[in-house]
Amino acid sequence: MNGTYDRVALIGLGLIASSMFWAMRRADMDTHVTGYARSAETRDTARRIGLCDTVCDDIADAVRDADLVVLAVPVGAMGAVARAISPHLKPGATVTDVGSVKRHVIDEVAPHIPDGVHFIPGHPLAGTEHSGPESGFATLFDNRWCLLVPVEGSDPAEVERLARYWQALGSNVDVMDADHHDLVLAVTSHCPHLIAYTMVGVADDLRRVTDSEVIKYSAAGFRDFTRIAASDPTMWRDVFLTNKDATLEILGRFTEELFALQRAIRTGDGEQLHAYFTHTRGIRRGILEAGQDTNAPDFGRVKVER
Amino acid sequence: MNGTYDRVALIGLGLIASSMFWAMRRADMDTHVTGYARSAETRDTARRIGLCDTVCDDIADAVRDADLVVLAVPVGAMGAVARAISPHLKPGATVTDVGSVKRHVIDEVAPHIPDGVHFIPGHPLAGTEHSGPESGFATLFDNRWCLLVPVEGSDPAEVERLARYWQALGSNVDVMDADHHDLVLAVTSHCPHLIAYTMVGVADDLRRVTDSEVIKYSAAGFRDFTRIAASDPTMWRDVFLTNKDATLEILGRFTEELFALQRAIRTGDGEQLHAYFTHTRGIRRGILEAGQDTNAPDFGRVKVER
Repeated sequence: MNGTYDRVALIGLGLIASSMFWAMRRADMDTHVTGYARSAETRDTARRIGLCDTVCDDIADAVRDADLVVLAVPVGAMGAVARAISPHLKPGATVTDVGSVKRHVIDEVAPHIPDGVHFIPGHPLAGTEHSGPESGFATLFDNRWCLLVPVEGSDPAEVERLARYWQALGSNVDVMDADHHDLVLAVTSHCPHLIAYTMVGVADDLRRVTDSEVIKYSAAGFRDFTRIAASDPTMWRDVFLTNKDATLEILGRFTEELFALQRAIRTGDGEQLHAYFTHTRGIRRGILEAGQDTNAPDFGRVKVER
Repeated sequence: MNGTYDRVALIGLGLIASSMFWAMRRADMDTHVTGYARSAETRDTARRIGLCDTVCDDIADAVRDADLVVLAVPVGAMGAVARAISPHLKPGATVTDVGSVKRHVIDEVAPHIPDGVHFIPGHPLAGTEHSGPESGFATLFDNRWCLLVPVEGSDPAEVERLARYWQALGSNVDVMDADHHDLVLAVTSHCPHLIAYTMVGVADDLRRVTDSEVIKYSAAGFRDFTRIAASDPTMWRDVFLTNKDATLEILGRFTEELFALQRAIRTGDGEQLHAYFTHTRGIRRGILEAGQDTNAPDFGRVKVER
């Protein structure tokens, strides 16, 4: 059947896996979904809220008959999970992942993929600042992009099948090379997160401005940073440790640029500042036109009727 | 009458002034509101959409009989506007402003305030990334903070009256010293804006990642930065030029902290990264508890029913 698999195993039951489950349900896929999470508490929660058809206590049982195995654990755990499932994978199955870094995941996972099993790394560009099995929802992937990063020897027909699966979940799909993926994500995601974490850390650390002031007066811009900086610490630690080169390269560019603007502030160069701030509006316009955000004035308050 | 003025003059008809007008209407204040904008186009727009009871082509006419004059122009224009209205202010009137920087505004405006006129600087911490007379809405100030920054000799009764006025518009009101205001805002607003502008500029400038990639894949975190970086360039140029010291101080702290995290990435210090990212979640929790944001997963997508 187009874009579906008879049995899907979700390994790791956080925001992404749980959203995939609800999106499969919404798509009326005739698919049996097994789930596994390392923590017994997470498995109990999944059973309680009806997440997955079967929640397995043993990772081997979860993947044994699966046609598609989705690794949805932090990037740093991918290698160990791949090693654990390796002997139990069904011949002809596809293993994919949803990690935010691709080169590292490929290096760690590929050696554990048996002959006759397909490995097609992936990355759905969707998320919220919430995590855990109860944070998922069916529309998370709608109109977002899922990047597939085939490795050498990936079967084009299986890549196409996985693409159709993600489209059935609501995504647009692009295919990309692993190194380029890691650079693009360093720009659009990894560095913005590190910067947001840093700014929130600075605010928290200042002696002359209290936390309660920062909190009360956050609507002036800071608040949007705190939303990003509330994301899952383990996931983000792993991202920075495993996408080190691209992240440090972009942070280097960022610092260079920030110093140039600081210098413009120090020397009172209003023209340079105005030109810079005008230019960046164009990117925002592009994002609105591409349907990746709404024009509702979300910064500060949602617009309502007068 | 409590918290109202018989005649209010709004000087500058952008997001803040237009929102003040609609909020006054919503509050059923029995107030005649005059408006003035330097641009004839803005005045025409205001007349067309019914913004203000009277839109004046001459700034003197707008302020002549006003009991409250609100300077709602970019911080860099405050001095010139104060000079222009000075001879026409009614004895006993109050002049306030809504500028994002307070020390500079006080230095520029106070010398033009005649004896017998009250000057009580203010700053409503509310906004969106949109600007202009059509961007305002009545609920912009609801549950946001307005900081009043009385100068030496401000009449406490008039400060109280202005506080009640802002409360009638939906705000909470705090009183603060000008220098402390400028430091707090450097943390909660000015530096986050500069950082967001910088990150968007870096993304736009990279040769190896196209703008169309940045735009398509923005939902992974970058998008929230572009919203902030779409704010009005003139307003923000003026903010940085006039709150130079506090901005540069906080940027210095930010850079220091960013370098420490970069070093942790370079040396692979996962413990330090994890501890840092865990810590910043606390601030977010405080903001939710203080009612300054909702817990809806806005980063990526609004949560809807399964």
